[in-house]
Amino acid sequence: MKTYNIALVGASGAVGAEIISVLEEYQFPIGHFYPLASKRSAGQKIKAFQSEYSVLETTHASFTGIDIAFFSAGKSVSEVFAPSAAKVALVIDNTSHFRLQEDIPLVVPEVNVQDLNHCPKNIIANPNCSTIQMVQVLNPLHEAFGITRVDVSTYQAASGAGKRGLIELQNQMAGHETCEVFPHPLALNVIPQIDVFLPSGYTKEEMKMVQESHKIMHADFPISATCVRVPVLRSHSESLSIHFKQEVQATQAREILKNSPNLVVIDDPSRGLYPMPITASCSDQTFIGRIRNDLFDSKILHLWCVADQLRVGAATNAVKIALEWIKTHH
Amino acid sequence: MKTYNIALVGASGAVGAEIISVLEEYQFPIGHFYPLASKRSAGQKIKAFQSEYSVLETTHASFTGIDIAFFSAGKSVSEVFAPSAAKVALVIDNTSHFRLQEDIPLVVPEVNVQDLNHCPKNIIANPNCSTIQMVQVLNPLHEAFGITRVDVSTYQAASGAGKRGLIELQNQMAGHETCEVFPHPLALNVIPQIDVFLPSGYTKEEMKMVQESHKIMHADFPISATCVRVPVLRSHSESLSIHFKQEVQATQAREILKNSPNLVVIDDPSRGLYPMPITASCSDQTFIGRIRNDLFDSKILHLWCVADQLRVGAATNAVKIALEWIKTHH
Repeated sequence: MKTYNIALVGASGAVGAEIISVLEEYQFPIGHFYPLASKRSAGQKIKAFQSEYSVLETTHASFTGIDIAFFSAGKSVSEVFAPSAAKVALVIDNTSHFRLQEDIPLVVPEVNVQDLNHCPKNIIANPNCSTIQMVQVLNPLHEAFGITRVDVSTYQAASGAGKRGLIELQNQMAGHETCEVFPHPLALNVIPQIDVFLPSGYTKEEMKMVQESHKIMHADFPISATCVRVPVLRSHSESLSIHFKQEVQATQAREILKNSPNLVVIDDPSRGLYPMPITASCSDQTFIGRIRNDLFDSKILHLWCVADQLRVGAATNAVKIALEWIKTHH
Repeated sequence: MKTYNIALVGASGAVGAEIISVLEEYQFPIGHFYPLASKRSAGQKIKAFQSEYSVLETTHASFTGIDIAFFSAGKSVSEVFAPSAAKVALVIDNTSHFRLQEDIPLVVPEVNVQDLNHCPKNIIANPNCSTIQMVQVLNPLHEAFGITRVDVSTYQAASGAGKRGLIELQNQMAGHETCEVFPHPLALNVIPQIDVFLPSGYTKEEMKMVQESHKIMHADFPISATCVRVPVLRSHSESLSIHFKQEVQATQAREILKNSPNLVVIDDPSRGLYPMPITASCSDQTFIGRIRNDLFDSKILHLWCVADQLRVGAATNAVKIALEWIKTHH
């Protein structure tokens, strides 16, 4: 069996650790493995594939002999090193740097795997975490009924800000007042800001949900997002109001979603069954519940979806892209 | 100065304690004060108005000589005892029992104080906590621009479920696994269920936000609500999408809201200024921020509001009703 030499930039981070787990679980055909990171993290030991590795500093020469390079170390790192890597390897980039650029496919395999066929720069972008779970839900509904508008409010976990975000929340819950990653204390609070604000009054995170969803779905229906950080360790939740071109019954939508890739419908509220972060965490599926008709307009549905954003929203999506790519480039 | 004899049913609960604080702070003209509760809580000592009181058991005879009786001990208690109290006193009931009944005014003084004028049963209902802050925001916008639709997703605090909810969250955060008040663990989680589910797929809490808002605002525009419990001790947050009859600029809405009763606009996101539970708690105002135009439809605005639901959403509203009532019944 053909194997692939893998570089992982950001190997010491929260998403990096998940990429290693997912590569192991999916029995990815790995040849050599090179965990890379910043100079600061170089020398750290990490365990992967039943071996121990030393993390190496990322340089322009790090990618010789590599087949696939995963980047998950922040957009400035991708900006500097991904073009070098792409000269010799396929780059799967988990940052926002390339996502909206032309000739860079932005891919959620369950939604637009066909976009992998046009990849002239050898760089494929992995979408934003909150976007991935949303388009997995919206795409089958759009294909079935035609979406005309979406309003989403999110409940996003601390680890969406990486390992440092996770640790900051844990420290705050233990009574420490450190507040470096988040703009305000997160323990026992909710913060209606993720990433920085743009002049429009929207955050970058909110604009990612709009612009990336449009690019992935090849659609342009109006989307509004309100992105909120909540004191949860992992898994993002989203409250969605979806307007359609036609009347749609909740039962119809439930059937469509049950039969769509990567989705699990948990929707039996009378028995207390609906998705939550504590039940979605460490899973590779996107969970949907609370599917119900609007009380006043039969063309509107409301629903609730939850997914582990480190896996569904980052690592698993990146590995699935790699698996799809090797199918056609073996 | 005329004084009023006050009974407080539910004196040992979370809202009861806030009613005492608010009566003190507003220097309510109190004559005698009778803290009442269930048999179980009778005999408890509470401090109020520079004195110590013993909590008395609520009976049908408890209300002799009372002018105003606040009820905040659950709807079954109100159902049994409020009619007896209303024979001799004005009842201000904080439960859901009477809210949607005919001839029972449901009042947020900033919105529909005129409804106090028709009170044939001597019972005034205090609305649901998440409803009060929302109608304080919606009413001035509806008067100015005409609302045609509202979609709201909430982020509701543990103390919305009373003192027991507050203690359960604190215990869970300290590592205890008790889960009696909430249907699932709340620490490090979010739960898309508040109150019980109805056959429609909506919870009672969600229906309260729809039906009570309509009654208070004398309006019938479509409202959808998704009510979610978050691991916050006090103050509810709400993400609102509001559709209008006409084009509305965020700057126009901001001016209207700034000049409306009980509202404080905190809306300077570039400086990290927006309302949050940790800054709204223990205040009597409703805070609004993140006011912004929809990106696609100039008749839609989005905003974020936060209020201390024990005060704005319960105790302070109840005391304000009492103050309005004594203005015309002195």
